[in-house]
Amino acid sequence: MELWFTEKHTPYVQFSIKIEKQLYAGKSEFQRIDILESREFGRILTLDGYLMLTEKDEFIYHEMITHVPMSVLPHAHRVLIIGGGDGGTAREILRYKTVESIDLVDIDEMVADACRRYIPQTAASLDDPRVKCHFEDGLKYIRHYENEYDLIIVDSTDPFGPGEGLFTKEFYGNCYKALKDDGIMVNQHESPFYPADSYAMQRAHKRIFASFPISRIYQAHIPTYPSGHWLFGFASKKYHPIIDARWQEWKKLAIKTRYYNPKLHAGAFALPTYVEDIVREVE
Amino acid sequence: MELWFTEKHTPYVQFSIKIEKQLYAGKSEFQRIDILESREFGRILTLDGYLMLTEKDEFIYHEMITHVPMSVLPHAHRVLIIGGGDGGTAREILRYKTVESIDLVDIDEMVADACRRYIPQTAASLDDPRVKCHFEDGLKYIRHYENEYDLIIVDSTDPFGPGEGLFTKEFYGNCYKALKDDGIMVNQHESPFYPADSYAMQRAHKRIFASFPISRIYQAHIPTYPSGHWLFGFASKKYHPIIDARWQEWKKLAIKTRYYNPKLHAGAFALPTYVEDIVREVE
Amino acid sequence: MELWFTEKHTPYVQFSIKIEKQLYAGKSEFQRIDILESREFGRILTLDGYLMLTEKDEFIYHEMITHVPMSVLPHAHRVLIIGGGDGGTAREILRYKTVESIDLVDIDEMVADACRRYIPQTAASLDDPRVKCHFEDGLKYIRHYENEYDLIIVDSTDPFGPGEGLFTKEFYGNCYKALKDDGIMVNQHESPFYPADSYAMQRAHKRIFASFPISRIYQAHIPTYPSGHWLFGFASKKYHPIIDARWQEWKKLAIKTRYYNPKLHAGAFALPTYVEDIVREVE
Amino acid sequence: MELWFTEKHTPYVQFSIKIEKQLYAGKSEFQRIDILESREFGRILTLDGYLMLTEKDEFIYHEMITHVPMSVLPHAHRVLIIGGGDGGTAREILRYKTVESIDLVDIDEMVADACRRYIPQTAASLDDPRVKCHFEDGLKYIRHYENEYDLIIVDSTDPFGPGEGLFTKEFYGNCYKALKDDGIMVNQHESPFYPADSYAMQRAHKRIFASFPISRIYQAHIPTYPSGHWLFGFASKKYHPIIDARWQEWKKLAIKTRYYNPKLHAGAFALPTYVEDIVREVE
Repeated sequence: MELWFTEKHTPYVQFSIKIEKQLYAGKSEFQRIDILESREFGRILTLDGYLMLTEKDEFIYHEMITHVPMSVLPHAHRVLIIGGGDGGTAREILRYKTVESIDLVDIDEMVADACRRYIPQTAASLDDPRVKCHFEDGLKYIRHYENEYDLIIVDSTDPFGPGEGLFTKEFYGNCYKALKDDGIMVNQHESPFYPADSYAMQRAHKRIFASFPISRIYQAHIPTYPSGHWLFGFASKKYHPIIDARWQEWKKLAIKTRYYNPKLHAGAFALPTYVEDIVREVE
Repeated sequence: MELWFTEKHTPYVQFSIKIEKQLYAGKSEFQRIDILESREFGRILTLDGYLMLTEKDEFIYHEMITHVPMSVLPHAHRVLIIGGGDGGTAREILRYKTVESIDLVDIDEMVADACRRYIPQTAASLDDPRVKCHFEDGLKYIRHYENEYDLIIVDSTDPFGPGEGLFTKEFYGNCYKALKDDGIMVNQHESPFYPADSYAMQRAHKRIFASFPISRIYQAHIPTYPSGHWLFGFASKKYHPIIDARWQEWKKLAIKTRYYNPKLHAGAFALPTYVEDIVREVE
Repeated sequence: MELWFTEKHTPYVQFSIKIEKQLYAGKSEFQRIDILESREFGRILTLDGYLMLTEKDEFIYHEMITHVPMSVLPHAHRVLIIGGGDGGTAREILRYKTVESIDLVDIDEMVADACRRYIPQTAASLDDPRVKCHFEDGLKYIRHYENEYDLIIVDSTDPFGPGEGLFTKEFYGNCYKALKDDGIMVNQHESPFYPADSYAMQRAHKRIFASFPISRIYQAHIPTYPSGHWLFGFASKKYHPIIDARWQEWKKLAIKTRYYNPKLHAGAFALPTYVEDIVREVE
Repeated sequence: MELWFTEKHTPYVQFSIKIEKQLYAGKSEFQRIDILESREFGRILTLDGYLMLTEKDEFIYHEMITHVPMSVLPHAHRVLIIGGGDGGTAREILRYKTVESIDLVDIDEMVADACRRYIPQTAASLDDPRVKCHFEDGLKYIRHYENEYDLIIVDSTDPFGPGEGLFTKEFYGNCYKALKDDGIMVNQHESPFYPADSYAMQRAHKRIFASFPISRIYQAHIPTYPSGHWLFGFASKKYHPIIDARWQEWKKLAIKTRYYNPKLHAGAFALPTYVEDIVREVE
């Protein structure tokens, strides 16, 4: 049975995965949701046809969006996740015992429900007592908080469709306000390689850079995302992502990771020259 | 006109590029050679259907396979390139004025000829007076040299087909012998992600590790290679790739790069934990 | 969401249909069964990855495999269908009031069940009181009957996998025996165009031609089958498919068809010269 | 080397052919022209990405567009081909010794030149002394002739792009005028199956039916055209395509054909009911 999921990374580049079975197809108020079973990547979540995660390589994305800021803030108490309805980011944050509560704000409850049923590898976390799910618009949610969170993780979809508002100046400004004085905001930051992705990345960085005193970009190898070269933004009121990292403390926590490690943490901020050039252009 | 080049990264994963035009199709004694024109990546060289380089992202591969060792050996005189018939590696090495001669040993002259005609971006280097092309088997060539080269770059195809011999213990041993006392060997080292590539990488590392006192692996983001996560091997008789890097000297050379930079050089050796685990298994 | 079903018609030819949703995926003792939803063709049944029917063009196949023989035998009483678990052939036969009973013998009950649930357009017929389903091997079933049926329709899958036995000399001989003196056997007969299909067609025709005094081939345009040019075999003890057709009687039955009509019936036996040549070779 | 030519038959249906080599890519004033080499179909001509002919199955199209009218007019002297720059239609007409001259009017000389070089199987005919090529707009050419031709064959591309004008009422009216009193016009008539093709077919038929006293549609199995079910129009001032066919005379000509034969000629006019319904709607 030849069934292939295809994502156009650009109009001229296709990435295709052989599918054994479609496990779920749903249409929420916000987007189309599919869960597919593949031999190469295990289960795959797609939203509006864009690949969001695969069981095989989601650890890379979820470790890098969480342990980088958490090794700077190993004693964070209050964490806010915007997006992240699949539960992968919450799962990694829950590994820190000092975290008292995670507010997870995702606009689309159907994503969480589908993942709960078909991708417990990430979504089991959603039922942890420390996680409180709010199925509402993150853009609106954030407006009501001030000096509340140690860490905000913006685990959004791409900057079109339902995730669009999470790439605006207003949103980043409100995140700044909602953070404590030593708070950190981390966000998924698209890819530097293909022109459309690179432009979105640049635009987002420009806005974050204008909102936070410290704003750095780091990278990871995520094989199932366009170009395999994915960026994250680290924005902070006070802490530098490398100088202020507390890796000794982090190591004591004995959190077993498969991608993240302190050396790689530092290395991830060493960007290729062409990426630095794109970033610098808007700083 | 919908013409697509498709490479199976695994039996279950396809990467496809829209082709505007096939510029060249040839069959040498060793392999099938094609040069394709694409809108996204410019011209593309494939050997036996495997993508070797694209005009758009070849700079990543070629900078990383050259400037990493050259910043440790900024005054290298004699360089040997095994493979590399497209000329991209030679082009980067030629940017060092102190290099007196480059021996380029590629088994297949037709590759060089096709690239000369259609991909001057890399192949123009082949006509530089400092480059001497030897169209013969690198495995045999290397047997005749001792204490000859400062740097050997193994810019091979994958470890099956004509490139197979360049992944053997005998070959690495002969490279060791052909190097001077402070010489370095760098090789393209496949990808850690998909199982078959990862296994090839591990096997090659095992052999290099057994042949050289210092053997480290570093990585780059190459969007058109399987998984986008590509590895290189740095093997050396004496110098450590980071501790002994001479970045001050390198910076004085004022070589303008688009991917490589000293910070990234150091970061490139910080591997994800799962890659370190694969590597350690055979050390 | 780009999900494509692809069938290789040959190693060098692919036919691909965009899929909105996979409705069913099952694995029986005999084969893999999938039901897919598409915008262009409605629901699609595939067995072991081969397209069996689509809601949009199944009428062509099912009308041509039934009304051609039934217009020669408009008063048939006892009909045997071998294969046909999707119910489409039975549906067309049920339109003849004089048919008293249809024995439908399909090896795989899961196909019938899946179609009952997802493709009632064909499978609703299976619950008609005149249809008796026998889920067993047609090859064995047929051995027990003599002088029993007016019409046997071999509505099989391709001659490999579970359908293989239905293309053997033994099977056709037993069909002959199970037919009444004026009985007719009709079978799906592959395509004449692509070499592998053409060879299968020729081999089957050779065996039928050796077993029946009258044996003719007719054709239809089935867009979703390989090459779109599909053949059927008409084998009979006594009646010629055109000379003995009783179209006046057939017309009085006022069966509304979308592909079949008496003129087309005659035309369908006029084969292209290259097909006649293939057929003649084995007569 | 996996290089695939893909034609979208509809937005939801793709037909793909593995390509060994692109032999030619050109861009004329009118369209993009490609000639591809494939293992399954031999050489393939595409215009603006639409498959026009393959060496393997062009005989079907070219025999059916010529021998059907020629068996009604076996002594035709003057033949006009509009389009047909690949030469296949001319080749078949040249087999009739009584044909004195063929005017071939194709807007795009580059198509003829490319076919002359790469597809002599069809284009060798263009250099026959009886063929006169006029590289100009057929729509304009036809305006200047009255009572001139025995047979006009409209061997056009699809009714969009350069072939558009060849589907207009004005054009068909001028063809009528250019024909002798017993003249025949035959045209390629798209497919009845996919909605957009079917609509184009219906619209063309409506216009031809309004221009000619006799207007019938016939069909052939052409595996590489959308749906494999292709139609032709037979329009005539006087002769009926079946009643007036002169097959005895035609047989005496001893023209060896691979698809066409007199029985099939008659059968080709027996259309499926759903096609007749579409046709009737506009008569």
